[in-house]
Formats: sequence, C-alpha cells, structure tokens
Amino acid sequence: MSPISRCVDNDELARLVRQYGLSQPVTVTRPTLPSLSEFAASLEGVWSRCWLTNDGEVHRELEAKLAAHLGVEHISLFCNGTIALLVALQALEIDGGEVITTPFTFPATAHVLHWNRVRPVFCDIEDKTFNIDASKIEALIGPETRAILGVHVYGNPCKVETIRDIAARHGLKVIYDAAHAFGVRLRGRSLLVHGDMSMLSFHATKVFSTIEGGAVVSPSEELRRRVNMLKNFGIANEESIIGPGLNGKMNEVQAAFGLLQLRTVEREIANRRQIAESYRRHLAEIPGVSMMQDLPDAEHNYGYFPVLIDTDRYGLDRDTVYTLLKRFNISTRKYFHPLVSHAPCYAELPSAQPDLLPVAERAAREVLCLPIYGTLDPNVPQVVARILREVHAHVA
Amino acid sequence: MSPISRCVDNDELARLVRQYGLSQPVTVTRPTLPSLSEFAASLEGVWSRCWLTNDGEVHRELEAKLAAHLGVEHISLFCNGTIALLVALQALEIDGGEVITTPFTFPATAHVLHWNRVRPVFCDIEDKTFNIDASKIEALIGPETRAILGVHVYGNPCKVETIRDIAARHGLKVIYDAAHAFGVRLRGRSLLVHGDMSMLSFHATKVFSTIEGGAVVSPSEELRRRVNMLKNFGIANEESIIGPGLNGKMNEVQAAFGLLQLRTVEREIANRRQIAESYRRHLAEIPGVSMMQDLPDAEHNYGYFPVLIDTDRYGLDRDTVYTLLKRFNISTRKYFHPLVSHAPCYAELPSAQPDLLPVAERAAREVLCLPIYGTLDPNVPQVVARILREVHAHVA
Repeated sequence: MSPISRCVDNDELARLVRQYGLSQPVTVTRPTLPSLSEFAASLEGVWSRCWLTNDGEVHRELEAKLAAHLGVEHISLFCNGTIALLVALQALEIDGGEVITTPFTFPATAHVLHWNRVRPVFCDIEDKTFNIDASKIEALIGPETRAILGVHVYGNPCKVETIRDIAARHGLKVIYDAAHAFGVRLRGRSLLVHGDMSMLSFHATKVFSTIEGGAVVSPSEELRRRVNMLKNFGIANEESIIGPGLNGKMNEVQAAFGLLQLRTVEREIANRRQIAESYRRHLAEIPGVSMMQDLPDAEHNYGYFPVLIDTDRYGLDRDTVYTLLKRFNISTRKYFHPLVSHAPCYAELPSAQPDLLPVAERAAREVLCLPIYGTLDPNVPQVVARILREVHAHVA
Repeated sequence: MSPISRCVDNDELARLVRQYGLSQPVTVTRPTLPSLSEFAASLEGVWSRCWLTNDGEVHRELEAKLAAHLGVEHISLFCNGTIALLVALQALEIDGGEVITTPFTFPATAHVLHWNRVRPVFCDIEDKTFNIDASKIEALIGPETRAILGVHVYGNPCKVETIRDIAARHGLKVIYDAAHAFGVRLRGRSLLVHGDMSMLSFHATKVFSTIEGGAVVSPSEELRRRVNMLKNFGIANEESIIGPGLNGKMNEVQAAFGLLQLRTVEREIANRRQIAESYRRHLAEIPGVSMMQDLPDAEHNYGYFPVLIDTDRYGLDRDTVYTLLKRFNISTRKYFHPLVSHAPCYAELPSAQPDLLPVAERAAREVLCLPIYGTLDPNVPQVVARILREVHAHVA
C-alpha cells in the first residue's frame, strides 16, 4: 500500500485527480526562450567573424551589459556556475584548510571546496531564510579556517554585514554562492557587491540563463584579470602560465543567448512575482503548509517558490505530498534534499553530524519547491492550493 | 634592430612582402561552420521541447552517432575537454600520488593532474612523433606511480601496445589525452579503444567541434555511468550522491552544432589532407625546415601542420620565422611552447628539469604550426614555401 492510499481513500483520490488534475504535466521550472529566428539573427555576427569562443565580441558585450544591469563593475563569464566557483576560490588562493559553509545548498557548493583541497565545515542555517546562521559561524572558526562560503538560498540575502564583520575580526575571506541571486538587491544595491567574490549561475533553470553558464563577480579589475587567466588554463600570454587553471570559458553562442535573455529578464521576474503572490494568497492558512515572505529590505527575483510541509499539522509528510502532486501532473522538487552533508564524501566530517544541524535537517525534510516560471499557467497556484486543501481535509 | 632586420635587409623584406604578402590575414585555424539557417533549423526540436541541457534528446543522439562514427561503444559528452579529462581521472580514482606524462602538451594535461591531487612526472618525448617516449617511462616508475597519461600529439598515435605492457607489468592505469585525435585510426581500429579512458576535445579549433566541448571514451558501460554521474555533480538519483562531482555537461545547442559537424567532418579531413600534402610538396628540401610524415599504420586527421625550424641550417630561429610570417599576414603558432614543465607551478619538480627533457626542449624551441583548415586558400602552402625559401636564400 502506497503512503498516499494509506491516508486518502483511493476512490476519493481518483475523484480529486479527475476534478483538479492538469491535462498536461507541469514542470517545476521552464526556461523562457527567445524566438528561434531572433536567436539565429543574433548569431549573424558570430558566423561572419567565424569566431566561436575565447573572449569573442559577443562575450565582451554580454559582460559589459551584465555588469551594467546588475550594478557591478568586474564580471567574468563562465561555462557554468560550478567551474566559476571553483576558479573563484583558486583566484582567492583558498587552496587548503577549512571553509565554513552551509549544508543546505546544491552539492556543487561543497564539491568545489573538495577540488580546492579544502575541508568543508558545515554550519547550521537560519529558520527564516534557510541561509547560513551567522550567529553560529564564530564558534566553528579554528586555526585552519580560511574563509566563509555563504549561499544566498532561493535568492534570500545572507546576513552580509554580520558575516563581513566576523570575517574581518578573524582575517577570513568571504565568498558567496549567488547561483540563485541574479538581480537581487539589498537596501538598493546589488547583493553581489558583498564578499570577496560572488558566483552566479546561468543554468537553464535560472531566472536569467545562457543555457548553461555562470559568472564570477570580482571586487577589483586586478582580481578579475586573475580570474580570467585561471579560466583560460592559467595562460597569461603566449609565453607564460600563472598557475594550474582550467577551461571555464563561455562561448559566443551562449553569450548571444544571454544578450537576448537580458532584454526580457525584467519581465520574467515580474511574471514570476505574480505567480509567487498568487501562491501566497491561495496557500495562506492551509494548516501545516508554510511559506517564505519577501524581506522588507530586499528586491527578490522569485527564482523558486519553496513551501514547508509540517507532517503533524498537515497530516502527510513532504515526500507523500511530492508523490501526490505528481498524480495531478504537478512536478515539484525537494530542493535541497538530501543535505550535501549526508553525501558519503562528507558524512564522516564532525560538522556533518545531523544533531549539529537541526534547522537544516528539518528544512531538508519539509521543503518542497513548487512550479514557478514566467510562462506558467497562472491558474496553477490556485489548483495546487485546492489540491493541498482538499487532501488536508481528508487526512486531518 | 629587430631579429629579422638583422638578417634580412629591410628594403629586400619590403619587396618580398609586396610580392608574397597576403591581402587578408590568414589565421592558423578556422572552424568550418554549417550555414546559420541550417543550424537554426536543427534547433527546432530543442525549442519546441524547451529542454536546453541535462541529458537532452539531441545530446543523446550526438553520443550515439559519435560512438558509431568513431567506432567506440561508451562515450560521454562534456562542456570541454579539460573538464572531461579531470573527471576521467576522478572516475578512475586517480586522486593522489604520481602520474607519468609528457611536458610537450597543452597545459591542461598537467593541470588536471594538479586538480586531482596528483604530482606530474614528466617523461621526455620521441623525436619522430613528439609523443611520450615509451622507452623512458619505466625508469620513472616509483612507489607512488598510479598511471601513465599519454597525449596523442597532433593526432600521432602513442606507442599504445608498449605503454599497455608497461602499465600491466606495474599495475598502472593508462589514460590518453586524445584532444588532437578525433577520428584517428591505428591499424584499422579507433585509436580511442586503447587505454583505460580517452579524452577528446571538440573546441572550435579542432577538426570536429561543438564550439566548446569534449568527451570521455570509457571501456565499459559501468565506467561510462560513473563518468556521467561525476559530470553531473556526482548525483546518482534524487536521493544520493556518489562523490564530489562537478558540472561537466554539454548542452543541447552545442550538441546540435556537433550533429551538423558530424555530417561534414569527413570532407573537412579530406580537405585538410590536401593542404597537408601541398605543404609537404612545397616545403620539401628547404634546408633547416623539417616536417612530420604520415605513419604507415595510421589514418590521420590533419588537425595540425607542425614544421621544425633548425636555426643553424635555416639561418633564422623559430621565433624570428614566426614574427616574419606575421609580416606576410600569415599567423602561425608555437604549439607547444613553452613546455608546461616550465610553468612556475611545475618548474621545481625534479622531473621538470630541462636537461632531463632534451627532445621536448628542442621540439618546443623549433616547432611552428602552420595554417591548416578545410576552407584554407589552397595557395597558402605554396606561398609559405616561397617565403621560407626566399628568406633562407637571403640569410644563408
């Protein structure tokens, strides 16, 4: 017997699926594409120059326009966000020791530490934003600590001033995984100006995309140049190599896609905001279903719409709700579950023990990201809410 | 006084430039592109599925067609060749100790060892192919040796049987950097079937390109699955992570480009072969200019056309010839110079000392890669030969 049928009568569920089930599957995210003819037209220069990668003209144009759009000065494009973060750490010479980070993140955050020979030290998260709990960082600092690697989860800004002050007191670097935070502003300024470097992801699932892609935002032109050499094999010029760099280059075709995305990203975010507001209206007051609210000092990008399912109050656990919504043709994601601290390569670390990370453990158990994207059928939030309400009524 | 004007009278050089100089700059390589409309048409399915990356349909089609074309069974596409080689080593669990490799290679070969916590041990190269000298490998094997990492330089096959036997005797893995070796066959079989894994590069400068891109060829489906998980963050499924993977994914748009390239790659290689043959005819018997010949048991891909400039016999050194040809609008590349063993991150290694690597040192000093690509003006080899001949006559 499935967990669902233990709780909801099969006939009753079939009736609900007939009543509310969507005729087409809805994915949790979906890129908003330029028209194909527009994309092809944007490649004419690339084709006529016959220059496909390696710091091409479109690449430079996208860097300049992104910097202006985001309100930052020094940006380096990458083939993806993971390689961007890996190179950012290398550029800051964080190549050993320990870095304090969060377990509530995509696995790549911890993996890039591994590749830089750094041991992650997991710090529990805040209840309100699911970001690293700045009040718990200082207790984890030891003689080998080199940096703090925060993640702006779902685009919620970390406590950047508190973290800056802790880092200053202890002589640590601060790096932000801002994969979720494209365009997010904090008290009127780009969130990306905080820390010694920030990484952005432009993966197809993101608010702004270059198909795959990412970027590093540096605080100075000198560091940007260093990042650019390291993403090009460490090559400084035809005669010399500064260090063991990698290939992190973004090509011209993806940069051209990015230029088109940049024209529509504001509309994309506005459309997502409407979806988020609709979820908030419709999901309000379902017992056991809670949501994050916008922060008063931030401009958000609505990249994700996470809800938390409290098993006792809602009557079903998160995994069952996930499976249940699939029956209605609605895909969701347990994002982030499992915690990266559970991965075999980290699970033995002292800081990875579940009893030290109670907030993160609960978040990983309860969180469910609902469908959100600019072209989502605007009825979906209401449908999801009706399903969740009716099911709750049956299991309560 | 420049090195050129020391040797060739300025007026005389100006006369030669007027007589032989090309009206348009010729690059050392240039991708042969599908038409833009053909490329756009090939993306229609991607746009209609709205699926841009993460093991999409086009990606799977390219993997299948490449495997068939190359005559291999297990292939994994990557965002670029460097990340492909990095993940290949990880998949083979080469994560420490020493690996014996060649200094005569693109820096990425050594860099991926660094990222896998491996110390490179540089072995000198053969005079004839510029590949790792298999007769010198065994003397370098020590208690920490884990593998041999050969490079099929310019697509010339390494001594794969000798290397296989050495590896078997000492319990070592064998990995090939086959970045140059797309489609190369040895005694009627794909060169990529040799070793425990091979890496291909599909960079824009290669015979076959996906703009940026690369691949790993695995010897079994089990290893291919491992590579595929590691290039996707080590994610095995929604609930588990096998290890600290990275993002090495190739996207759908690049895969679509690759499918079009695959249709024309045989013609590209045939055109390049004609250029190579023309160089060989025209450059024959210029004192101090020597060339590589095709190997009797190999089918080559003509990705590069290296020549060697013997300073004493030709009358000018390689660097001067490089600068001189630029005056005639002909770009060449000192490929590979400097040796990666000269990079500050490796130069202190005992095996990096120049007196231990005399053949590689000489190759790096004398080699010059001449323009070669499918759409190159077929007169270029003759023009290059005339310039080199006339200049030699003036300096001899």
